[in-house]
Amino acid sequence: MNLDQTIASIGPLDEAAMAAARARQDMLTKPQGALGRLEEISIRLAGISGQPVPRLGRKLVVVFAADHGVTAEDVSAYPAEVTPQMVANFAAGGAAINVLARHVGAEVRVIDMGVGKPTANIARGPAMSRRQAIACIEQGIAAANEEIDAGATLLATGDMGIGNTTPSSAVVAALTGHPVRQVTGRGTGVSDEQFERKVAVIEQSLAVNSPDPDNALDVLAKVGGFEIAAIAGLILGGAARRVPVLVDGFISAAGQLVAAKLCPSAVEYTFAAHRSVEVGHFLVLNQLGQMPLLSLDMRLGEGTGAALAMSIVEAAAKILAEMATFADAGVAEASEPAASQQP
Amino acid sequence: MNLDQTIASIGPLDEAAMAAARARQDMLTKPQGALGRLEEISIRLAGISGQPVPRLGRKLVVVFAADHGVTAEDVSAYPAEVTPQMVANFAAGGAAINVLARHVGAEVRVIDMGVGKPTANIARGPAMSRRQAIACIEQGIAAANEEIDAGATLLATGDMGIGNTTPSSAVVAALTGHPVRQVTGRGTGVSDEQFERKVAVIEQSLAVNSPDPDNALDVLAKVGGFEIAAIAGLILGGAARRVPVLVDGFISAAGQLVAAKLCPSAVEYTFAAHRSVEVGHFLVLNQLGQMPLLSLDMRLGEGTGAALAMSIVEAAAKILAEMATFADAGVAEASEPAASQQP
Repeated sequence: MNLDQTIASIGPLDEAAMAAARARQDMLTKPQGALGRLEEISIRLAGISGQPVPRLGRKLVVVFAADHGVTAEDVSAYPAEVTPQMVANFAAGGAAINVLARHVGAEVRVIDMGVGKPTANIARGPAMSRRQAIACIEQGIAAANEEIDAGATLLATGDMGIGNTTPSSAVVAALTGHPVRQVTGRGTGVSDEQFERKVAVIEQSLAVNSPDPDNALDVLAKVGGFEIAAIAGLILGGAARRVPVLVDGFISAAGQLVAAKLCPSAVEYTFAAHRSVEVGHFLVLNQLGQMPLLSLDMRLGEGTGAALAMSIVEAAAKILAEMATFADAGVAEASEPAASQQP
Repeated sequence: MNLDQTIASIGPLDEAAMAAARARQDMLTKPQGALGRLEEISIRLAGISGQPVPRLGRKLVVVFAADHGVTAEDVSAYPAEVTPQMVANFAAGGAAINVLARHVGAEVRVIDMGVGKPTANIARGPAMSRRQAIACIEQGIAAANEEIDAGATLLATGDMGIGNTTPSSAVVAALTGHPVRQVTGRGTGVSDEQFERKVAVIEQSLAVNSPDPDNALDVLAKVGGFEIAAIAGLILGGAARRVPVLVDGFISAAGQLVAAKLCPSAVEYTFAAHRSVEVGHFLVLNQLGQMPLLSLDMRLGEGTGAALAMSIVEAAAKILAEMATFADAGVAEASEPAASQQP
């Protein structure tokens, strides 16, 4: 499916399924609301899937790997050859995402969006053409469709690309209007001097390219990256097929922001997996109205936060599906309606 | 082992194992520190177990169930007969703790500390004798020893007892010096009127019993509960055997606070699983210097937060044990030492 068709097929959450899930939560053997966000997650899963009691099966982390011409500006602590080396590490099963995905029972698929074939240097001109940006988004959409056809019921975004916090900060600055310094972090760990250079490079990329802040495709093409585009596509593709997408950290959030600008209702199909250490991440989450599920001071990318959060989302689905009701279990209900307000 | 022997056998964390774990974390294929709290958890697991690369096996949630005479004061939204009904629900596998423990691959053991045989009403006099308090702690210690002998490598605390946020708030108020109102929440969901009564009952229990704030056993016996004592015992028993204990929410934190007062170094063997909605919980965590792993607005007890957090602790152990090193994977390291300070 192409981008326009995909966006056109993203509908609202299923209110009837959500109401049924909410009613079931209130019959389960616990005080109403006592499982907090697990209850909310289960209700949204119902709205996403259209099933009053959604059940998750195959889980998949899709890691989009790409290189960035802007590494010529010395914005990363790591050399660009680490991107293909880490892709090999993913294939061998030795990276953090492999360990965490195995732990939660998820598979990992790595998609090469341009490893060794970097975007142009955004400090000098546009990263890619508008046509390329659309093609990369459509690769993400295609990945979502293929994997959902193959039984995936929960998708997670991941990224690998040395230098990719730089275009991510540029995209976020352009689309949110926040100053570059506010949305720029240390990435994988640069020195103070490199950090100042990174801020200057991002500011330069915005000055050189003048992306239109009201046009997400223009921003993506001018200061984004191939993997950021594909992440946006995976989100749109999941939303179009009514499959939830867990969004990893800052790079993924840049893709999520692009997806949200292209189709605001797509955000309802996503869960923010964790709060990254990258300073710009929380600003994106605030703008999207999302609360991260985890906050463990992580800043690795690869989909590691999203993989960990899969366990929480799956737990929420199981609570709704597997707990006994008061009637099932012969347990007395509250003597009067439980207070709906929490202190 | 009795209480005194158990406390005497709790030693410091193994610094050599922690140093080895820290060194290995820095060789794994990720920027140093990029997995945040997962790295810290793995290092502490090394210090707890004395193994440079600790591996977790059998995981167990121990749910201590008990009744409370103070329910005569109408402090809970639920009638006291719900305690045995929920114990039956645990046995049938239909409660939230059953679902979440199955999800993370843990077993559940329910220990009857006095279901149907409540403590005395703390609003009128002491909950139990000092001898009973010690016996209950020693039941918790015995449970830890039995389960560790049977192969448990990770323990979690859980509780079931209608009315038990009331003695928990009383214990926390007495041991921390915080005003009752600051450490009292809505429990499973009481009305405004019941909340005011609950605060008054707790204040009365402290006035009637005058527990000695410098004597945790005195506080526990006078205003505590049988399951709170047993939770303290499970923590002490785990620490004595160098097995980590995940501490659930507010009731468990009251037990953790008692354990910490009896033996401050026991706290190093515990992880705070989650931040409960109960207002007093965060004050206890602050006093103990612990940051919860999860914050999902839960307030159910049973060990539900601890069960969910088991997945995080186990993930941390697997990261340390299973990730490839830079040398293993042939990945280039950072071009200069990664910045140790995060923004």
